[in-house]
Amino acid sequence: MTDAGAGAFVERMLAEYRDMVIGTLLRDLPDPGAPGLYELVSSYPSRPGKGLRPALCLATTGALGGDTARALNSAVAVELFHNGFLIHDDIQDQSQYRRGLATLHAQYGVGVALNVGNATNLVALRRLLANRSHLGARLAWRIFQETEIMLRHTLEGQALELAWINDNVCELDDDDYYRMCLKKTSWYTFVYPCRLGTLLASGEYPAAALDRYGWYLGAAFQIQDDVLNLVGLYERYGKEISGDLWEGKRTLMLIRFLRISTDDERERLRGFLAKSRADRTAGEVSWLHRRLLELGCVDAAGLAARQLAAAALAEGTAALAAVPDSDDKRFLLALPSYVISRDH
Amino acid sequence: MTDAGAGAFVERMLAEYRDMVIGTLLRDLPDPGAPGLYELVSSYPSRPGKGLRPALCLATTGALGGDTARALNSAVAVELFHNGFLIHDDIQDQSQYRRGLATLHAQYGVGVALNVGNATNLVALRRLLANRSHLGARLAWRIFQETEIMLRHTLEGQALELAWINDNVCELDDDDYYRMCLKKTSWYTFVYPCRLGTLLASGEYPAAALDRYGWYLGAAFQIQDDVLNLVGLYERYGKEISGDLWEGKRTLMLIRFLRISTDDERERLRGFLAKSRADRTAGEVSWLHRRLLELGCVDAAGLAARQLAAAALAEGTAALAAVPDSDDKRFLLALPSYVISRDH
Repeated sequence: MTDAGAGAFVERMLAEYRDMVIGTLLRDLPDPGAPGLYELVSSYPSRPGKGLRPALCLATTGALGGDTARALNSAVAVELFHNGFLIHDDIQDQSQYRRGLATLHAQYGVGVALNVGNATNLVALRRLLANRSHLGARLAWRIFQETEIMLRHTLEGQALELAWINDNVCELDDDDYYRMCLKKTSWYTFVYPCRLGTLLASGEYPAAALDRYGWYLGAAFQIQDDVLNLVGLYERYGKEISGDLWEGKRTLMLIRFLRISTDDERERLRGFLAKSRADRTAGEVSWLHRRLLELGCVDAAGLAARQLAAAALAEGTAALAAVPDSDDKRFLLALPSYVISRDH
Repeated sequence: MTDAGAGAFVERMLAEYRDMVIGTLLRDLPDPGAPGLYELVSSYPSRPGKGLRPALCLATTGALGGDTARALNSAVAVELFHNGFLIHDDIQDQSQYRRGLATLHAQYGVGVALNVGNATNLVALRRLLANRSHLGARLAWRIFQETEIMLRHTLEGQALELAWINDNVCELDDDDYYRMCLKKTSWYTFVYPCRLGTLLASGEYPAAALDRYGWYLGAAFQIQDDVLNLVGLYERYGKEISGDLWEGKRTLMLIRFLRISTDDERERLRGFLAKSRADRTAGEVSWLHRRLLELGCVDAAGLAARQLAAAALAEGTAALAAVPDSDDKRFLLALPSYVISRDH
């Protein structure tokens, strides 16, 4: 396949799986019970999104010869946990836009949004409990255990990133970034869905089968996300452009800037990062944006993403070598190239 | 026993169980993993608190002839979920003090506090997963199911209360209050711990065994809490006095005021409630405080709490009639009187 052909194939697979998952998710929400709760749980999932995480879960199940219909309930849980994180993450980052619309807390206030995030996680938990009747007690329990591991990594990654911003930590190297990224993004976006997909196909999780694939892919994905945050188009990307700069996020690009810039510019950046979000100015953000481009920090991040995607492809190819060809396998192996060429 | 003797007995039992539970909770937190996460999970549990919920769980197990040591892990989970709720609830209510110290979000910001609340719930979830090895798969799963029900009621109750405040709902009657109170307070504070205690003693949950006891007790407890919020001493109570008025909480007293006051005063209250918390003034809060007392709304709430406590005692006595006498049984039956005579 050409690159464009591969991209179109990935988009088609994503759309198919997304329709299945979001359709099931929205159809089976609990009865109201209270105003302003479950109908708001449907808000983020109803907005345009890639549905990458549940697709990974289902495609892994399918590629390994499992029954994707049997995995659907868990894939819905994966998507729900993702949306629960987004709602809380948007509160924590004070983000204003998500998937092209106002964030939930911007629309309804922090109190309601926090509660809806919790309710989203609860609905995910209900899905995991429902697994017992159609997967059996043992497999349902294993999926719970994987979920606990995923939640732990994600909260620890989030804590790490928040601490860097709150304590204005500037002495960071690439390894620090990759460690945070493994916990905050890779685990729940790639490693967890692949592990669930493997469990759902075979009932077992062979040690580290697709872990390295997921980890490299996650790092490539997050770096591309950071790059898009600087050079993307809002119409495609759906979040504030340069939002990461306003938030003072420690991206690979920012860490590189702190390493290679002159003492004067480094001090200027430290001063900017020491301010609260509200005190940062458009002029400062614009200067930083320009300098990250001029100093090659964005290009270097793009290169790192491409190298990580290549590593993900190599790991995925090795892990799936014994598996017969299928759309699901092709999808998994096309993803590394897709995540670094996407514009949203 | 005299009332004072019964009060001292309850306090002693609470202190004993609290030492066991909080000691275990603080000793067994996960390794750091990230800065500003698990060490902050210990913040609220380390502050002075009654430890009512885990004590109820352990005393129910003991009263029904079960092994409280076997129930300890679940009691720790009950206390953790409570603390997770408190952290999130304080963010939602913009509360400034908790157990005599600054709330977590007032100390560390909303982002960190939200994450620590989630981490607290995660640590509770880990406890529930750990149940499997010492309680067996079946009972561990039943406890998960009860936990899902509890979380659902709590989030729905929270949504109800937030919606009343955000939408400035003033047409409420006592039944609306009791419905919210059952979901937001009674379930997780009384019904859930009693259900877990029963499960842990017998492996089964006999339909509605202690449910009505827990529900009446929860309503009495919440009403007394609302009363203390108006007439308590900060040194004993540990939260802002009149904080509920600043927040516009729909208490039984406020609902009564809306029903019995003159049209003029009702309009004045509606105007007050229509404002944001920040726009309310000390003069308005002071007027409302005085009128709630003068119109007998506080006395009426006190009477309702006493009637509910009597109902709880009757239900508890009936539910435990066949059970031999023990400190745990005496504790459960002394609680109704305790919750309405407490000053903190």
